[in-house]
Amino acid sequence: MNARTPRFTGVIPPVVTPLTADGEIDTASLERLVGFLIEGGVTGLFALGSSGETAYLTDARKDVVVDTIVGAAAGQVPVVVGTIEQTTNRAVERGRAALKSGADAIVATAPFYTRTHDTEIDRHFRLVADAVDLPLLAYDVPVCVHSKLSADLVLRLAADGVLAGVKDSSGDDVGLRYLCLGARELPDFSVLTGHEVVVDAMLLGGADGAVPGLGNVDPHGYARLDALAAAGDWAAARAEQDRIARLFEIVTVADPGTASATAGGLGAFKTALKVRGIIDTNVVSPPMRPLDAGETARIAEILERAGLR
Amino acid sequence: MNARTPRFTGVIPPVVTPLTADGEIDTASLERLVGFLIEGGVTGLFALGSSGETAYLTDARKDVVVDTIVGAAAGQVPVVVGTIEQTTNRAVERGRAALKSGADAIVATAPFYTRTHDTEIDRHFRLVADAVDLPLLAYDVPVCVHSKLSADLVLRLAADGVLAGVKDSSGDDVGLRYLCLGARELPDFSVLTGHEVVVDAMLLGGADGAVPGLGNVDPHGYARLDALAAAGDWAAARAEQDRIARLFEIVTVADPGTASATAGGLGAFKTALKVRGIIDTNVVSPPMRPLDAGETARIAEILERAGLR
Amino acid sequence: MNARTPRFTGVIPPVVTPLTADGEIDTASLERLVGFLIEGGVTGLFALGSSGETAYLTDARKDVVVDTIVGAAAGQVPVVVGTIEQTTNRAVERGRAALKSGADAIVATAPFYTRTHDTEIDRHFRLVADAVDLPLLAYDVPVCVHSKLSADLVLRLAADGVLAGVKDSSGDDVGLRYLCLGARELPDFSVLTGHEVVVDAMLLGGADGAVPGLGNVDPHGYARLDALAAAGDWAAARAEQDRIARLFEIVTVADPGTASATAGGLGAFKTALKVRGIIDTNVVSPPMRPLDAGETARIAEILERAGLR
Amino acid sequence: MNARTPRFTGVIPPVVTPLTADGEIDTASLERLVGFLIEGGVTGLFALGSSGETAYLTDARKDVVVDTIVGAAAGQVPVVVGTIEQTTNRAVERGRAALKSGADAIVATAPFYTRTHDTEIDRHFRLVADAVDLPLLAYDVPVCVHSKLSADLVLRLAADGVLAGVKDSSGDDVGLRYLCLGARELPDFSVLTGHEVVVDAMLLGGADGAVPGLGNVDPHGYARLDALAAAGDWAAARAEQDRIARLFEIVTVADPGTASATAGGLGAFKTALKVRGIIDTNVVSPPMRPLDAGETARIAEILERAGLR
Repeated sequence: MNARTPRFTGVIPPVVTPLTADGEIDTASLERLVGFLIEGGVTGLFALGSSGETAYLTDARKDVVVDTIVGAAAGQVPVVVGTIEQTTNRAVERGRAALKSGADAIVATAPFYTRTHDTEIDRHFRLVADAVDLPLLAYDVPVCVHSKLSADLVLRLAADGVLAGVKDSSGDDVGLRYLCLGARELPDFSVLTGHEVVVDAMLLGGADGAVPGLGNVDPHGYARLDALAAAGDWAAARAEQDRIARLFEIVTVADPGTASATAGGLGAFKTALKVRGIIDTNVVSPPMRPLDAGETARIAEILERAGLR
Repeated sequence: MNARTPRFTGVIPPVVTPLTADGEIDTASLERLVGFLIEGGVTGLFALGSSGETAYLTDARKDVVVDTIVGAAAGQVPVVVGTIEQTTNRAVERGRAALKSGADAIVATAPFYTRTHDTEIDRHFRLVADAVDLPLLAYDVPVCVHSKLSADLVLRLAADGVLAGVKDSSGDDVGLRYLCLGARELPDFSVLTGHEVVVDAMLLGGADGAVPGLGNVDPHGYARLDALAAAGDWAAARAEQDRIARLFEIVTVADPGTASATAGGLGAFKTALKVRGIIDTNVVSPPMRPLDAGETARIAEILERAGLR
Repeated sequence: MNARTPRFTGVIPPVVTPLTADGEIDTASLERLVGFLIEGGVTGLFALGSSGETAYLTDARKDVVVDTIVGAAAGQVPVVVGTIEQTTNRAVERGRAALKSGADAIVATAPFYTRTHDTEIDRHFRLVADAVDLPLLAYDVPVCVHSKLSADLVLRLAADGVLAGVKDSSGDDVGLRYLCLGARELPDFSVLTGHEVVVDAMLLGGADGAVPGLGNVDPHGYARLDALAAAGDWAAARAEQDRIARLFEIVTVADPGTASATAGGLGAFKTALKVRGIIDTNVVSPPMRPLDAGETARIAEILERAGLR
Repeated sequence: MNARTPRFTGVIPPVVTPLTADGEIDTASLERLVGFLIEGGVTGLFALGSSGETAYLTDARKDVVVDTIVGAAAGQVPVVVGTIEQTTNRAVERGRAALKSGADAIVATAPFYTRTHDTEIDRHFRLVADAVDLPLLAYDVPVCVHSKLSADLVLRLAADGVLAGVKDSSGDDVGLRYLCLGARELPDFSVLTGHEVVVDAMLLGGADGAVPGLGNVDPHGYARLDALAAAGDWAAARAEQDRIARLFEIVTVADPGTASATAGGLGAFKTALKVRGIIDTNVVSPPMRPLDAGETARIAEILERAGLR
């Protein structure tokens, strides 16, 4: 393996977006959350990711989120900003807003809602990279976007200097392995996994870091895991990952009869952060519902069991 | 069958959005297109649908499109406006913009990009209907939204006065039949099919009208088909539909090696309208490519064969 | 439209397979069912289709089913036999067994379980047709087979004399329309729809007949519908179809918490036939469960409402 | 972690089924292959898996395959036999045949072709286990079966003594992690991964062994990888896995314009085994085509590069 110096490594959580009771951005809670994450050892912050409810926010609220995170981070760690919009021109518009707000990089998906094509996806990333003067990461999340970024496409865009990295939330561990193998020849390129419970395995396989939604709740745990893996202590990394995997069961608490997987997942992250005293409410955006008292109690138990309060 | 007086009937094409060579809205072409459609016998205009490239337009350009169509329609036929956004708050924002521009109704999908749930979809439509003082139609297009609106959910929302109608582009002819059966008890509710080549069959099955993308290219044909069906002349309606089905083959002309189904479909509509002299360019939004000269020639042949020019 | 003389027209129900309490083929009930169907006006019998539980039967039981149906039909109507097996050699083996049992035609799907390819599907049908000296129909049922037969592929095989017809249970009404348009040039080729509640619409669009599972329960209704359509009385055909569509709601009776769609569907057909006195039990193959007493009562009500008993 | 003694560990390749030029089982090649695998260090043999073309074989040929493998293994390693049939009774029939042939265990999937339900899948495995007096493993392969076995369902069946293990080819690395966590409380239960290129990562995460199709081609490599992981030398295990991942590129050699993924994958395994001199032909079952001379040459190059010949 060549010496590599990928730009993004370690733990870069997709920061949740705290809301007030009436649905506005709770900037005070968001500032506390940023402080908690940086104190916990994260190496970057991903604003306006799926866990940040980006799909639910109007443009005005998105600007508030990025301004708040950039301000609170105050240059201690880089801030990468999601520009997750249906197509090119809209992603460019949001990318330029992120640049203006002081982002260090942007993260775009393939086009969605519309049907698309590998040729168009390739052109999409090139056009976004050309139009926004920031490093660009690709976000591969077929469960939302309904197309898959092939390893070949990502590696070609990386080799051409279009992409600075990729966040892989595809669940395609075979594809991720080939990304990692291909990245051997791309010294600066970053391969980041989005899957909370297999970070140890993906780091063993060659990933450079992780973007775990659960990292909002337990940044210290992920930072430990990353350090153990970097030190080659894989048995201890696995033990830490196993503890975290059990913590991740908070995402299964919400009643699936009345909550989507999204509501159950990010609702659990917000509820856990409220239980831990970091943010003020567990309000989520409409049309989702927040977790209720019974669900909150169950999450508190799981936190307790995992050694978090 | 009870006497019904559904609000939306006949042919309501999803109006394509002409672009200039540099990608701006070509308002002159758009005004000509509106005139062509009204002259052709359409009963309404659907702005900012999938065929209108809504997924590709920034908010500022969307406002231009709606203002132009409303202005050109000048009250001759109603204008329904798509508010096809990822989630509730964003759809409401666009719905209010449509209201301000003078729309007669809005059309919303279920949430997309994010994972969702029937409970959330139900709440989404109720919140949008509450927040925007216009009739609301649901747009069922699983190939884009990746969830299906069940007949039960749509009929319940209709019975509760939330929905004024549905555009069904789901390809689920069985579900559509049950929508039509259920609508017997809902005098004002409109069931519209989005499938260009089975309009005769869906009208026989009880649909109230059609929202055919191909209606941009051949509004006269669809108006004839609708009139024949209304008169009970099903054999002649079928013959007209068969002619139109052959015309629809224009959507298969684009090379599938370099164009998505979306680019091939709406690219064909724009190219046909250019060949027919209605709009000035066949430019489509990035990252799609326009149809080339060879593809244009093939489309001209199909138009010729279908008796158009 | 040219004069066409397709080989298979009218109503050809996929005959359910009655079972005894201990899971053996109930040949006496099966013989009564065949008599009931022929008396009801069907134009053919499809043995070992999905509704015939073909997926659940050992080869020995399949032989009993075909022998019984062929014997009871006694040449009054043709018997087509499903050879629905994972791949070519196995379909050929079952096709030869069907020939030996006196079948008039066989029906094969594309390969399943294994991943496949249009080139392989094309070769599959050619090899089966070559190896079994009976007319071959293609069965397009993506919900089971997980690939779709394109209209182009089917029409090419038809033009080459490989296929005598197609049963379309794809739910792709657009594709079916193009099959019907293409069949204009294929005088003997039969396009049959498998969708119970849109037979009127599909006949209007050019289909030659139907293969409705619900035809087991109400052969007389489907025979009337077919005759009305053939006479061009589309309004009356629609009314009959609407009555049948309401009858089809029997497939929604089984509790979806404990029954698959298959168990709910063919379980309903068997239960309705038991209620109507045609077969002795509503036993279904393991691992499915039969409909219970409450579900049976609900089915009896729906039958009553539809004018059956 | 408790001390566990899972029944199946190490490397248990799904043995390919060599064919003669005219499509019969090439028993001499199959015997050589079994010898090669045992000499290479495998800990078991999986007959009639997906890589063994089980979907393509008639029952008579399946019996030949199992008899040959059991005979050649001669008790040196256990032989587990796939009973991959559409539903319960058929799986039982094949399971009893496997028992008669001397199998040490059987492997069944959920029902396929038919639509199914978790309740039915649960009952299916219980009925198969009851009816066949051999240990039963579940095979989770959604790409073929089109349903996913949840970790909860598998662990419940394991706790009840129905399942002795699971082969996970689902690509759901998160689900696999929870299987491994749950298996901590099930001393005898075996979690085996079917994914060739992430065996190191899955072993780190707690898997007990692997069932790699590529293990036919390079049993020695997988045996080394397994030994390194068992010894806790994860860096060396990763290096071996990386070498194997590059070898796995043989499955991408076949022209995707004329070969399915199945044909390309198992065709590559057979071609590599022919190049390595273990089996006589690279013939595959109809309707697949064998790899051609150019594809064979490319596979020989990849073998060479991976240090094999």
